[in-house]
Amino acid sequence: MRYCSKCGNTVDMIIPKGDNRPRAVCPKCENIDYDNPRIITGTIPLYEGKLLLCRRNIEPRIGFWTLPAGFMENQESTAEGALRETLEESGSKAKCLQLFSILSIPHINQVHMFYLAELERDDFHPTEESSEVALFELDDIPWDELAFSSVEKTLKFFVDDHKKGRYSLHDDNIILDQLCSKK
Amino acid sequence: MRYCSKCGNTVDMIIPKGDNRPRAVCPKCENIDYDNPRIITGTIPLYEGKLLLCRRNIEPRIGFWTLPAGFMENQESTAEGALRETLEESGSKAKCLQLFSILSIPHINQVHMFYLAELERDDFHPTEESSEVALFELDDIPWDELAFSSVEKTLKFFVDDHKKGRYSLHDDNIILDQLCSKK
Repeated sequence: MRYCSKCGNTVDMIIPKGDNRPRAVCPKCENIDYDNPRIITGTIPLYEGKLLLCRRNIEPRIGFWTLPAGFMENQESTAEGALRETLEESGSKAKCLQLFSILSIPHINQVHMFYLAELERDDFHPTEESSEVALFELDDIPWDELAFSSVEKTLKFFVDDHKKGRYSLHDDNIILDQLCSKK
Repeated sequence: MRYCSKCGNTVDMIIPKGDNRPRAVCPKCENIDYDNPRIITGTIPLYEGKLLLCRRNIEPRIGFWTLPAGFMENQESTAEGALRETLEESGSKAKCLQLFSILSIPHINQVHMFYLAELERDDFHPTEESSEVALFELDDIPWDELAFSSVEKTLKFFVDDHKKGRYSLHDDNIILDQLCSKK
């Protein structure tokens, strides 16, 4: 059971005229509540060749290490959102250099984007969302303690590109079947 | 006035604990209805050096020319969505080559993405959404009859890159102030 955000009536899951998939249509006020994928935006924060990671202080994946990232908000750009999340999670001001990865994750209706970013200063600290914030040499990335598959995939691309000496955009998908078959 | 999608009660626009901006919070069932930016995904469809455009048969901007694009749906990738929209709007099957533009439009809470794409065949037709579908030489792009600023910006980047003989990713914003000052 679901309700109309505009008038509070119960909605019907039906295919509206001119559409091709079921939506939450209100039979009373005719409003349609669309449900679409959300964007997670974040950074690969670098300082003098080292990588900043945050140990999650909140669920999901509390205690695991992540790149700073979170839901893109209204009224901001993808890069602004990435820098806002970096500041919120690590206390660091950073500057976006280039979009590095864009990962569609169809089974959870999300698209994750990570920007290569440069920290302005060697200045970061634990936050409400991160119990620990630290710089890592690329050889010391805690691969077995990473919070999310999108973070792992992005960091693998990053380490590979770093070895090649050239960073390019990685547009890829994370598919449930592949995640399961890895285990 | 807005209503909870989970229980139908009226919601309060308040800042939830641990958050930093107002959300639609239900005082009865404690559900939070988040409102986040949506993704528009589409293609720059190419066939033997020509560009496929669609004349819009629906509002907004009915009668104007556009690149095929639309809201990304749940359970698909950005590239899959771009090809689905291309098929729906032009009747053409295409193949994505590379992500070409990603344009944040903060004042309408959207991110527009366009893929360089190749048509499999010289095969397209009017559809419910397009009154006309046609191939254009790059010198004949109808600049004054384009439907949206994201389409215009993407096509300018495309024509510039085409002249340079190298296509790169364009990550940019479309800002309301800039649109207004153009007029």
